Amino acid sequence: MEVKTYIRENRERFIEELFSLIRIPSVSSKHEHKSDMTACAERWKELLLSTGMTRAEVMPAKGNPVVYGERILSPDAKTVLVYGHYDVMPPEPVDLWKSDPFEPEIRDGRIYARGADDDKGQAMIQAKGFETALRTGILNCNVKFILEGEEEIGSPGLEDFCKTHKDMLKADIILVSDTSMVGEETPSLTTGLRGLSYWEIEVTGPNRDLHSGHFGGAVANPINVLCKMIADITDADGRITIPRFYDDVEELSAGEKEMLSKVPFDEDKYKQAIDVKELFGEKGYSTLERNSCRPSFDVCGIWGGYTGEGAKTILPSKAYAKLSCRLVPHQDSDKISELFIHYIRKVTPDYVKVEITHCHGGQAYVCPIDLPAYKAAEKAFAVAFGKPPLAVRRGGSIPIIPTFENVLGIKSVLMGFGLERNAIHSPNESFGVDLFYTGIEAVAEFYREFS
Amino acid sequence: MEVKTYIRENRERFIEELFSLIRIPSVSSKHEHKSDMTACAERWKELLLSTGMTRAEVMPAKGNPVVYGERILSPDAKTVLVYGHYDVMPPEPVDLWKSDPFEPEIRDGRIYARGADDDKGQAMIQAKGFETALRTGILNCNVKFILEGEEEIGSPGLEDFCKTHKDMLKADIILVSDTSMVGEETPSLTTGLRGLSYWEIEVTGPNRDLHSGHFGGAVANPINVLCKMIADITDADGRITIPRFYDDVEELSAGEKEMLSKVPFDEDKYKQAIDVKELFGEKGYSTLERNSCRPSFDVCGIWGGYTGEGAKTILPSKAYAKLSCRLVPHQDSDKISELFIHYIRKVTPDYVKVEITHCHGGQAYVCPIDLPAYKAAEKAFAVAFGKPPLAVRRGGSIPIIPTFENVLGIKSVLMGFGLERNAIHSPNESFGVDLFYTGIEAVAEFYREFS
Repeated sequence: MEVKTYIRENRERFIEELFSLIRIPSVSSKHEHKSDMTACAERWKELLLSTGMTRAEVMPAKGNPVVYGERILSPDAKTVLVYGHYDVMPPEPVDLWKSDPFEPEIRDGRIYARGADDDKGQAMIQAKGFETALRTGILNCNVKFILEGEEEIGSPGLEDFCKTHKDMLKADIILVSDTSMVGEETPSLTTGLRGLSYWEIEVTGPNRDLHSGHFGGAVANPINVLCKMIADITDADGRITIPRFYDDVEELSAGEKEMLSKVPFDEDKYKQAIDVKELFGEKGYSTLERNSCRPSFDVCGIWGGYTGEGAKTILPSKAYAKLSCRLVPHQDSDKISELFIHYIRKVTPDYVKVEITHCHGGQAYVCPIDLPAYKAAEKAFAVAFGKPPLAVRRGGSIPIIPTFENVLGIKSVLMGFGLERNAIHSPNESFGVDLFYTGIEAVAEFYREFS
Repeated sequence: MEVKTYIRENRERFIEELFSLIRIPSVSSKHEHKSDMTACAERWKELLLSTGMTRAEVMPAKGNPVVYGERILSPDAKTVLVYGHYDVMPPEPVDLWKSDPFEPEIRDGRIYARGADDDKGQAMIQAKGFETALRTGILNCNVKFILEGEEEIGSPGLEDFCKTHKDMLKADIILVSDTSMVGEETPSLTTGLRGLSYWEIEVTGPNRDLHSGHFGGAVANPINVLCKMIADITDADGRITIPRFYDDVEELSAGEKEMLSKVPFDEDKYKQAIDVKELFGEKGYSTLERNSCRPSFDVCGIWGGYTGEGAKTILPSKAYAKLSCRLVPHQDSDKISELFIHYIRKVTPDYVKVEITHCHGGQAYVCPIDLPAYKAAEKAFAVAFGKPPLAVRRGGSIPIIPTFENVLGIKSVLMGFGLERNAIHSPNESFGVDLFYTGIEAVAEFYREFS
């Protein structure tokens, strides 16, 4: 049977199977979802078996379990290891969702739900692409699946899992669908990812909330102090001021700058889509350079004092923030975290106490475009999308990708089908139904090309 | 009967009556407590009648009702108008309370509850002081009570109420127990109050939370921007940088500096009590000058982005803060608010939108120490506490006090019995049982001296 025919004949079942995963709210960052994590892993095991895997297991790991599956055709054949994750981001702020984040709804040809793209939708594209290749007889390599439940919290246990199960995970290449393309009309493969460091900071002033009339002016306010610390981390040119932060950042080559300038990009449309009048970033770099090849510093959340309705005149005891830096190839996440923590401690004034915790981090990654698997992916995209994909570096981070290289010695090909409009990590995350099927076709075609 | 004897014989009833007020959670800043406001006003009406007032009413006002009571001895006698408020601050953070904030508990001779001091406890001292003077036959003047239900949200309706009921509120002096003393061993009367301006600011970046990997570095983060704005409002010397902010601030006279330096103050104990290693405030002024005679800027609350458990890598859409300035005599609250809002608008960069709202404000106040009522209060304190009180300016604000002067043409004497350790506006607010009775005695003695 033709690839396209198989997909068409099974299209409804594919969507139903995806929905069955989405309905399990597998939010890894919240303890209350602990049992959902196991339920989601178990559901994946069933689904992998139904695609034609001959072995599938929910395996214990340090944190949430790992789902492993395999179909071994021959010990002599090449092996593809597919990586994905079954955990999702928290749905908050829930009131901005137009429909229940965990009850998928199709509106105007798009699936709306948390995980519709990241990464349940994309991991299902891999699973159904494998099934299609197998059932249409074009599969000629061994295929293994590893699906983790802690990607959104930095994959804290996966490195140990890889070390423990190095033999089981042996492969020639890792395939990952967890990135996005340049645009609907511009298919692309991701050849680079940024790294990440993420901290939580707690600033303590007085030991209780004080009356701002009786104490204001005499006692340092921890929110004011935290704001000053955050403000000082970047300068007026959008550069990070932490000493030695840029030491290992490689300047963009002329060639890379040229390639990036070829990516179709309409700055006005980009601004309109997010409704901002002006963009802001590091001086001397274009927007696409800033959000893919340059490091950045963002406050992901901040809180402290009275945040309820009305006015409360206090000088609060505590202020908190979640801080993060995106890093670029050659910047070491651990080293940056040390510099960052050292800097914060150094600038902490005597009148407050500061606790800073490194929550998680990950290295940046580069994929060489002369790998046979990369070439196969390029051809597969050309078939499925009708045009060859661009090769671009992207701004997101998948910390486990550089870890795979270090621990397992295997390179990854980043065959992502996401789009900016899919709004991953945001309310009303979505994925186009047609693109879901095109993705499955691309994965099936990859197996034809690669084997 | 002697004043002391009357108080001793009625001590348990006085406490029970106070508890009956505290048990009504009259939090004015929250809509959910609307019916508690009326219940608390009605309870006050009953209590005023039971003290010996000949008229008491719950009167409609623009917001929460006003309780009015009076005992007119003779049209020719002098009239004292007592002002207090029956609303309280929100109890949050509730988990830091050792007992229910609205179920008063006496531990080690102290009443623990929201409003134990501010202002249910202190207003009851006035009511029971009046009752004591009346029942012991030392009262020789007319007494009126006005108790409002919106002090903690800036008394938005009281000015209109005063204008409408100017005749009813006619008096020679206003007595207020809503301030604090220097210390348990150092009784004092408050001769000055700071003013206040309070704003809420909303900074909007992109129209939705964005993935910090895909957008970080290219799009301005509204939390980073808000932190920068807040940081820039004060300089390294703790001075407020808003242009013309200090224009109307009177420098402290040598006399006032000297008087303040006589206030017993142990800076080490002060720091220990709130557990800070160092104090911080405007350069060139002492701690007591800073928190009573100099303006200040505090962030009372801040929030934005992801504030839940774990890590979420977003570039958020919104950031908010509640900002406030304490002001000193001659600084006009409205003018300062205009300068502040103008400044914020001017420094708002093109890449975010800012909404800033002036929530409420109030003028600063000075009480001349040669007023007959001030002299009477001084003598009354000397009798009740066994030593004459100090005259000091304090850092808090009671916006309605300067309004009384403007609208009714009446000066106020600030006969407050609070103490710093009472932790008003904070968890575990408390009031010493003995001080409650000493306060009642001081108020009764005031009536003996004043008539």
